[in-house]
Amino acid sequence: MKAEIISVGTELLLGHTINSDAAHIARGLAEFGIDLTHTQVVGDNEQRLFEALQLAAARCDLIITSGGLGPTKDDLTKETVAKFAGLALVNDQSTLERIKKYFGSAPMTDNQLKQALAPEGSVIFPNDYGTAPGMAVPFDQHKFVVLLPGPPKELLPMWKNYVEPFLAKLTNATIVSRIIRTFGIGEGDCAARLGDLLDGINPTVAPYASEGEMFLKVTAKAKDSLQAHQLIEPIVVKIQQILGDVIYGVDKENLEQVVVELLCQNKLKISTAESCTGGLLAKRITDIPGASAIFDLGVISYANCAKEKILNVPETLLNKVGAVSPEVAEKMATGILNLAGSDFGIGITGIAGPDGGTPEKPVGLVYIALATKNNINILEMRPKGKQQTRSWIRRRAASNALDMLRRHLLGLPQKTNDI
Amino acid sequence: MKAEIISVGTELLLGHTINSDAAHIARGLAEFGIDLTHTQVVGDNEQRLFEALQLAAARCDLIITSGGLGPTKDDLTKETVAKFAGLALVNDQSTLERIKKYFGSAPMTDNQLKQALAPEGSVIFPNDYGTAPGMAVPFDQHKFVVLLPGPPKELLPMWKNYVEPFLAKLTNATIVSRIIRTFGIGEGDCAARLGDLLDGINPTVAPYASEGEMFLKVTAKAKDSLQAHQLIEPIVVKIQQILGDVIYGVDKENLEQVVVELLCQNKLKISTAESCTGGLLAKRITDIPGASAIFDLGVISYANCAKEKILNVPETLLNKVGAVSPEVAEKMATGILNLAGSDFGIGITGIAGPDGGTPEKPVGLVYIALATKNNINILEMRPKGKQQTRSWIRRRAASNALDMLRRHLLGLPQKTNDI
Repeated sequence: MKAEIISVGTELLLGHTINSDAAHIARGLAEFGIDLTHTQVVGDNEQRLFEALQLAAARCDLIITSGGLGPTKDDLTKETVAKFAGLALVNDQSTLERIKKYFGSAPMTDNQLKQALAPEGSVIFPNDYGTAPGMAVPFDQHKFVVLLPGPPKELLPMWKNYVEPFLAKLTNATIVSRIIRTFGIGEGDCAARLGDLLDGINPTVAPYASEGEMFLKVTAKAKDSLQAHQLIEPIVVKIQQILGDVIYGVDKENLEQVVVELLCQNKLKISTAESCTGGLLAKRITDIPGASAIFDLGVISYANCAKEKILNVPETLLNKVGAVSPEVAEKMATGILNLAGSDFGIGITGIAGPDGGTPEKPVGLVYIALATKNNINILEMRPKGKQQTRSWIRRRAASNALDMLRRHLLGLPQKTNDI
Repeated sequence: MKAEIISVGTELLLGHTINSDAAHIARGLAEFGIDLTHTQVVGDNEQRLFEALQLAAARCDLIITSGGLGPTKDDLTKETVAKFAGLALVNDQSTLERIKKYFGSAPMTDNQLKQALAPEGSVIFPNDYGTAPGMAVPFDQHKFVVLLPGPPKELLPMWKNYVEPFLAKLTNATIVSRIIRTFGIGEGDCAARLGDLLDGINPTVAPYASEGEMFLKVTAKAKDSLQAHQLIEPIVVKIQQILGDVIYGVDKENLEQVVVELLCQNKLKISTAESCTGGLLAKRITDIPGASAIFDLGVISYANCAKEKILNVPETLLNKVGAVSPEVAEKMATGILNLAGSDFGIGITGIAGPDGGTPEKPVGLVYIALATKNNINILEMRPKGKQQTRSWIRRRAASNALDMLRRHLLGLPQKTNDI
């Protein structure tokens, strides 16, 4: 089956909005094995949209539009598609009731009521996060135009809850995906180790990189969810065997979620002493709801005087080896451990740049120490190749700290250097 | 002048990449008053790209492509455009030298050398951040196809440094923009207060909202930069008069940059005591290079025991009024001020949710205190309407803290409530 996306909205042609809807729809179609050959963007302009529909209809079996379903006079997608498909607009009773409920006792305008109209014979997709419903409008006997609202907060859940089941029926298939998240392996290395697995058709294995991390989306298509899971599981196991402990979670959000969950399960507490990361590690830990069960105290000892006064790092040590050193990272970690009375203490000290580097201690050099009452682990991040940005260095340092904690909690070997 | 974008790349049709290039190009064209009527996306497919060029050529005077300029066999844009324009590919000497320099003594493959080819008569745009150059290829006498590389880190500077001057010549115009940044005013309120100013054609005034902040981009087109500035300045002054002290900067990156600069100029230091923001405020301050001149120490006193032990918040007070109270915010601010010996101390305590709210102290309730040696200001964030996310509440609280500091440093009136 061939598909085409038509994104509708003058805001897209003015560049006020980045077309993330098209990428979301494209990924969704790929998961069903539907071949997307073209995307078009047109403004809120009836004639241009009509021409775009004609062009798409000549090239494919399934047209997906996003945008132009709202109540204002600029919103013309539904009317134009009805005209294109040669169908009359009729009231959809379920939508009418849903909209009336949505507005409660507030009076509704004609424009709002217009949102309950749909081309005759359409399949309606309720909008659980707004008023305008989506719909699949039949044309040319076996073809459909699927109309979706533009705002991602409406489009994304509608895709998941209503369009996926519709496409499942249309293609006689169900889609199931799992996300495998990794830290500490590069894209190239990962691709080389996975080899042929990345070329699979069903399941597909798609690698994504974001903010220095890599994740793999494994997606299977089958006639029901059980069969799809049966296709996925051996691939997930295979990837786990190949990549091993750089995988920090399957179907998890991020490293901090995994670490906070592990600490909660083990009823253990962490405290943080940060210099170059300036609070980023604590911020990421407390991004997770419920972090208060495992985190009481963090200190950002940005200046040497703060390291001495609050964390008891000896002034003589700071003078001798300098603030950016494994020794000071260790003293920061044990200092915060003692101050907070926690089970783990983390100390981070480094040079985030862009200034302040020297040949011996270049921008990007960071030491991270993880202390328990009887043990200390230290990891060195030393820059290789081109200089990274301040923001990359800080994020990477915080991620390494979280990963050290994860490895400790799971009894995995610690690294002493970042790759 | 009418334009059309053709984005080239199978990764766009698979949804692996969000098409931010198209939005960037669209904004750039709008600034020159060039009318963008369509955008097309095609894969790395010669025939479909050729058809897309034909379709676009029939509708517009200027075609901009992005992607498909690299050294691999998938990269077909230049070859296809040359065929479309009926021009032979010839070596561009300047590019050849630039690429040879780029690779140094490393041997170059034929594929890499192919990047120095350009359709005869093209205007070349050097690539300062990669190898493949951009170019403007003439066709149909007065029309052009502008070819740009896909990676945003190559495309964005090329647009600024080479395409803008090219379009300036083509349209006989120069573009100048200024960005006015605000905090504490909603989009609707801002639009109402600015009224007709938002409808201006030259300069244009475009509002953008991101992460609870609003900024306005004022863009003028004139025959030279001086005239463009002369068009812009009265509009910027008018907007400053209308919006007043909710404007925190013109041509600034963000609130933290403005606050760190003000502190540096005044040689004053800040320290932070955070509960619900969990380090986010310190993280944002230390995002700014050079923050070490104005920030020595921050404490994340997430638990009550940390508030007592490190910041000297009295246990009796915590028991009496609870951790989320103006009194505790004040004690946190004075506590960190005394501990750090800084000029300003900030205390933040609140309920970021999603759990932990009560009818009296709902999720979203936050108190922020700004202490100096002789003065204290307190701001209350109390939720109105629908519940905001944990991430929104935390970001908003940190922004309010920065804004209180800005207002103090500039002698502006303080707010006691968030809007």
